[in-house]
Amino acid sequence: MSTFWKSRYALRTLGIKSSAIRELLKVTQRPEVISFGGGLPAPDVFPVQRFEEACHKVLQEHGAESLQYGATEGYEPLREMIARNMARYGILSKAENVLITSGSQQALDLIGKLLINPGDSVLVEAPTYLGALQAFNVYGAQYVSVPIDEDGLVTAHLESRLRAGPKFMYVLPNFQNPAGVTLSEGRRHELILLADQYGIPIIEDDPYGQLRYEGEHLAPLVVLDRENLRRDNGFALGNVIYLSTFSKTLAPGIRLAWIVAPEDVIGKLVQLKQAADLHTSTFNQFVAYEVARDGFLDQHVKLIRQAYRERRDVMLQALKEFFPPEVTWTHPQGGLFLWVPMPQGTDGQELFQAALAQDVAFVPGDCFYGNDSEEGCRHMRLNFSYSEPEQIKEGIRRLSQAVKRQLYHEHARV
Amino acid sequence: MSTFWKSRYALRTLGIKSSAIRELLKVTQRPEVISFGGGLPAPDVFPVQRFEEACHKVLQEHGAESLQYGATEGYEPLREMIARNMARYGILSKAENVLITSGSQQALDLIGKLLINPGDSVLVEAPTYLGALQAFNVYGAQYVSVPIDEDGLVTAHLESRLRAGPKFMYVLPNFQNPAGVTLSEGRRHELILLADQYGIPIIEDDPYGQLRYEGEHLAPLVVLDRENLRRDNGFALGNVIYLSTFSKTLAPGIRLAWIVAPEDVIGKLVQLKQAADLHTSTFNQFVAYEVARDGFLDQHVKLIRQAYRERRDVMLQALKEFFPPEVTWTHPQGGLFLWVPMPQGTDGQELFQAALAQDVAFVPGDCFYGNDSEEGCRHMRLNFSYSEPEQIKEGIRRLSQAVKRQLYHEHARV
Repeated sequence: MSTFWKSRYALRTLGIKSSAIRELLKVTQRPEVISFGGGLPAPDVFPVQRFEEACHKVLQEHGAESLQYGATEGYEPLREMIARNMARYGILSKAENVLITSGSQQALDLIGKLLINPGDSVLVEAPTYLGALQAFNVYGAQYVSVPIDEDGLVTAHLESRLRAGPKFMYVLPNFQNPAGVTLSEGRRHELILLADQYGIPIIEDDPYGQLRYEGEHLAPLVVLDRENLRRDNGFALGNVIYLSTFSKTLAPGIRLAWIVAPEDVIGKLVQLKQAADLHTSTFNQFVAYEVARDGFLDQHVKLIRQAYRERRDVMLQALKEFFPPEVTWTHPQGGLFLWVPMPQGTDGQELFQAALAQDVAFVPGDCFYGNDSEEGCRHMRLNFSYSEPEQIKEGIRRLSQAVKRQLYHEHARV
Repeated sequence: MSTFWKSRYALRTLGIKSSAIRELLKVTQRPEVISFGGGLPAPDVFPVQRFEEACHKVLQEHGAESLQYGATEGYEPLREMIARNMARYGILSKAENVLITSGSQQALDLIGKLLINPGDSVLVEAPTYLGALQAFNVYGAQYVSVPIDEDGLVTAHLESRLRAGPKFMYVLPNFQNPAGVTLSEGRRHELILLADQYGIPIIEDDPYGQLRYEGEHLAPLVVLDRENLRRDNGFALGNVIYLSTFSKTLAPGIRLAWIVAPEDVIGKLVQLKQAADLHTSTFNQFVAYEVARDGFLDQHVKLIRQAYRERRDVMLQALKEFFPPEVTWTHPQGGLFLWVPMPQGTDGQELFQAALAQDVAFVPGDCFYGNDSEEGCRHMRLNFSYSEPEQIKEGIRRLSQAVKRQLYHEHARV
C-alpha cells in the first residue's frame, strides 16, 4: 500500500526531462559557489522602496478590490499601461490585445495548451530557452531545430524546415537565452516573409528587449509582421504572438507577464487561463501598476541597463584576460547571458564537475536543445546579471582554471 | 488575412463551455443589481491593515528575497506553517507533502494534467464545482456522476459507478459548492472503503472546511483514509489528495492555495507546476506567511465565521419569509452557498431573466453538472457571503417576486 500511486495507478507520462537547472540550484546554494547558472536579476536592483510605497497606496486606496477575485484578462489599467508602453516600441495594440499571465512561463504553457497536439512539431532555435521546451514537452511536442550564429537564427536554413509543417515557430530575437545573440534586421524581414508564405505563426518571446546595452533597437517581429500585412491589404490581425514580462524590469517574484495577440486568440487564451488559475494575483497587478506608473519603469530600466552593462563588460574583459586563446564566446548586446562554445571533443559534464570543484557554476549547454545534441554538451551558458562585478571577475578566473585543466587534460579531477 | 487565425490555422478544440459565470459577472456589475451569483468573500472581512503591516515587514526584512525567483514547491516557512495548521485537523503531513499553488484552480489544473488522458472518466458529484469541470474538460475528461442529497454524495449509488473504472473521484465533502451540503460521517467511511476496494484515488477539495457555523467538525477523507491504511499495514502513502486554500480565509486576490499528497505525487506535480508557471509569487507567499502567523489566521477565521453565519441566517430567514411554500432549499452548516431546487418543470433560463429584471442575480444550476442535466436547469445557487445582511434580505424579496411569477405563470416577462 505504501507504493499505491506507483503500483496500482499509472501516473501519466509527462515528457519532462528532469531539469538540470533545478538540480543546479541546489549546488549553487553553497555560499562559497559563484554562480553564473541561474537567469536571476541582480537582487540589488529591485526597487524595494518603491514597492513598499506602492503596497501602502494600493491597500489604503483599493484595499478590498486588490484582495478580491479579479477578471481573467487582467487589471484593466495595467493592460492599458502595457499597451501604451509597447506603442513606444512600435507595437500598436489595445488593452483588448493584452492578456496578463502569471509569468512568461504561463504564457508558454497556455500557448502550448492551445496549439500543440501530441506529436505536433514546433520549430525552435538550436539552442533555445529551456523553459519553453519544458512547457511544450508537456503537450507532446516534437521539435524541428534551426541553428543560430552571431546574427541569430540562420534564416537560410529555415525554408527546408518550414516545409516539414511545424505548428508554429518559437523564437527569441533579442539577446537570446541561452546564446545572447540578436536576430539581425535583414533576417527579421526574411523570417516574417517566410512565416507569411508558409502560413506558420510565430511566438516572439521578448523578455529582455528593453535591456539593450549597445547598438540600436531593432523592430520586433510583431511590428514587421503588421507592416507586411498592411502592405498586403490595409488591415490585419497578424501572424505573431508577442510575449514580454516584468520579471527582468521590475521583479520576478511578483510573477507578472503578458501576451499580445489578435483579440480572438486572446479570447481562447482567456478561456484556458480561466481553467488554469482563474486569474493572476489581483494584488500584484495593482502593485505593479503603482510601481511602474508616472515614468518610474523607464527610469528604473535605465538603472538596470547601466548595472548590467557594467557586469557584461567585466565578464567579457575577464574572459579575455583569463581564458585560453582557443576558446571563443558570444558578445551579447543586451540581456543576461553569454554563450561559450568549447572546442570540439570537450566533455561538458566533466567540465561542469571541474568547475564545481573550483566553486563556480554555469549551465551546461545540452539542456537548451529541442532534440538531443552532441553539439550542446560542449557549450556553457554564463549569466552576468546576478553576481557583483568583483565576483564575476573571480568566478571567470576560477572557471578558466577548470577550462584549462579540461582542455589540456591536466588534473581533470581536482 | 484579417481572419488568419481562424481560416488558415485551426485553433485546437478546447472542450470548455463558455462560462455562464463569466457572462453573469458582466450583468452583475450594474450597481443596482444585488448579486447572489459569484462565490466572492465579503470585501469587508479582508484584513487590509494586517496585509499592510505584513507588506511593510516583508519588504523591510526580506526585500530582495521576496521579489526574486523562488522554489517551485513554495516558500518553506509557509509550507511548514500549513502543515502545522492542518495537523490540528488531524491531517498529519510534513512540508514535503505540501505544494503551494496559484489558487486551488491551479491545483485542479495540475491534477487534471497529471491524471487525465483524453476520454478518461472522472467521478464527480451531481452537481459539482464548475471550476473543476472547466479544469478537467481541458484534458478531455468524461464524467461519471453520482447524485447528492442533504447528506452529500449518495454512497449507495457509488459502487455501480466505480465499476465503470473512473480515473479518480473528485469530491467536496464540506459545505459543497454549489449545493451547500456536507458528507455525513457514515458516508465518509463508506467512501474511503470503496475507494480502497476499487483502487480509485480521491481528490478531496476543501476550500471551506474551516468556515463551519454549526455542528461538529467531521474528519476529512484524507484523515480517514490514513486511519484505514494504518489498520491495514501500519504505514501508508494514502489514496487521497487533499486541496485547500487561503482564498476564503485571507483573500482570493493573492492566489494562494495548496495540495497535500504523498511525496512522489508531489514530485510529479512539482515538475508540472514548473512547466506551468515556474512558481507561485514569492512576494505573496512571504506576505501570507506574515499575515497568518502568530495566531492571526485563527482569530480572523473566527471573525469570518461570525459574519457569514449571520448572513446565512438572514438568507434562510428571508427565504422562509418571502418564498412560496412549495419551494425548498438546503440548510448549509458552513461555506458560502445554498441551493434551491425549484419544482419540476421550472424553466431556469426564464427564471434567471425574470430575476435580472428584478435586479437580483444567481447562478442557474445547469453549469454544475458534468453531464448535461435537465435536473440542473431548475436549480438556483445562492451565495450568502458577499452581500450585506440588509441587501440579502432585499435580494431574496426581489427574487421571490421572480419565483412567484415563474411558478404561477403570471407576467413571466416583466
